[in-house]
Amino acid sequence: MGGTAIKGGALDASGCILAQRDTATCVDSGVQPIVDQIAIMVKSIVDVLEIDESRIVGLGVGLPGLVDYSDGRVINCANLPGWENVQVAKRIAEKTGVRVLMENDANNAALAEARLGAGNGEASMVMLTLGTGVGGGIVLNGALWRGADGTAGELGHSIVHPGGRRCACGQAGCLEVYASASATARTVVESIEAGAASTLAERVRAGQPIGAADVVDAAKAGDEVARAAWDATCKYLAIAAINLQHGLNPQSIVLGGGMSAAGDFLLDNIKHQCAEIMSHRLGRRPDLRLATLGNRAGFIGAALTALDA
Amino acid sequence: MGGTAIKGGALDASGCILAQRDTATCVDSGVQPIVDQIAIMVKSIVDVLEIDESRIVGLGVGLPGLVDYSDGRVINCANLPGWENVQVAKRIAEKTGVRVLMENDANNAALAEARLGAGNGEASMVMLTLGTGVGGGIVLNGALWRGADGTAGELGHSIVHPGGRRCACGQAGCLEVYASASATARTVVESIEAGAASTLAERVRAGQPIGAADVVDAAKAGDEVARAAWDATCKYLAIAAINLQHGLNPQSIVLGGGMSAAGDFLLDNIKHQCAEIMSHRLGRRPDLRLATLGNRAGFIGAALTALDA
Repeated sequence: MGGTAIKGGALDASGCILAQRDTATCVDSGVQPIVDQIAIMVKSIVDVLEIDESRIVGLGVGLPGLVDYSDGRVINCANLPGWENVQVAKRIAEKTGVRVLMENDANNAALAEARLGAGNGEASMVMLTLGTGVGGGIVLNGALWRGADGTAGELGHSIVHPGGRRCACGQAGCLEVYASASATARTVVESIEAGAASTLAERVRAGQPIGAADVVDAAKAGDEVARAAWDATCKYLAIAAINLQHGLNPQSIVLGGGMSAAGDFLLDNIKHQCAEIMSHRLGRRPDLRLATLGNRAGFIGAALTALDA
Repeated sequence: MGGTAIKGGALDASGCILAQRDTATCVDSGVQPIVDQIAIMVKSIVDVLEIDESRIVGLGVGLPGLVDYSDGRVINCANLPGWENVQVAKRIAEKTGVRVLMENDANNAALAEARLGAGNGEASMVMLTLGTGVGGGIVLNGALWRGADGTAGELGHSIVHPGGRRCACGQAGCLEVYASASATARTVVESIEAGAASTLAERVRAGQPIGAADVVDAAKAGDEVARAAWDATCKYLAIAAINLQHGLNPQSIVLGGGMSAAGDFLLDNIKHQCAEIMSHRLGRRPDLRLATLGNRAGFIGAALTALDA
């Protein structure tokens, strides 16, 4: 669930999707209407599958916020105003009669990619989700690593540029403000506002929004401002990958989220910069891969989280 | 074992030290003389304990280099020239008749502090060893996290200042070149060479070496150049701690190595800067602690590594 839509479905134990639903989020009226929406969705799916509710192992719920998995509490969520220290799992469970497992959506996506996607079932994988922000998830020994308080995997808030751009989280220099889709667009806008010539300048000056896909298209077409911004984004992602490689040494590092649609244009650039920046004396380079489950990853991962519990 | 000395001993299953030996490392003659030194040390300890060799569970060996734990191979070691891709464990095992477990010494120290020291037996702990370099070790679910290739925990080579000072490893901007004992002294030397007034200036201009302890003393006595250098070191350690907290969310982060002798003067500064720099919306602050096992940590940890195997 996010600030825009709630996507739900039923999966069997092998991760196969049996039924799917989605609905626009009732975002402005607090927690209860959303709990009700989820309960209606669960009922609708159970009805269409014609199964007994007792066969439901659990209900995994993911959202883009800080979650305490142990008690199903949402600590905070930037996209859902008012969701602070709310016992969401408990409320959904009361309404649906099903056990509810809450998790951060980037964690869920990482679990899905590790088991059924780019991670290929290997024991250890780290995933970075590149969208409006940068999400992260860590899978070790085949399971999500949640940390002592359930807040592990917030890799988008690794400080990669001390004293740099201010992040919405309050810190300066987070990976998220240098390597997300919106950060990439911002780098181009700042260059244009500083007077650089770019094919995107007219749109920026007209106040039209640009996105990472526009930057990719312009960079591919030879626009130097777009190319420099893309290189800067990929440099910070290379540094993040190098730091993960030295720290956790996972089998693979998987890149997902909207910006990973850039495909090899993203992957090859990061790999090239890893080779330039990383020491050759400290072990192998990160095995960087593109995610394969697309926007189903968070959804499948929520089910896996419920299954694991 | 290191470039200066080999310290060895026998420990029982509870981590109690039964006997100890040390000797200067035969560093200039390649691998075999050191293997022989270790074999002699093992024999000497077995003799003094008057135990049967069959009661030795294993021989843990730690050294300050990149080690592949799985096959006991030393990949490289800056302090031991020529130790590159050497099957050290196999050679020591052949000579002693005992099973040998090789590990990076910072990893061993982390395991010891986690189980018997500052980590207090808690499930997850990260240790930073602050000396000439910065070593790291990660303990998760009570065991060392070695990663896919055994190279995990090289936290001193996290890039915290992209494009910054060159590290001996070949990278630019490693934590090690901003937050080790030698980096701290270097920061003072650079300030003095740039013309800043300091009580340490005379010694630096006379070409006398200064160390982190001198910087600490001068900072405590009110020297502003020393104070600024100390603050800079602690700032980078705060950033490292914040990034570990967001990424791994361990129960505690332990600071060891020679520079941790500065005690609360180190710990309080880092905690203060963590509070200033870290987002309050992304979970609790790191639980930073000083190591308690001193220079026995690596030694005890080598035994624990053998015991675990």
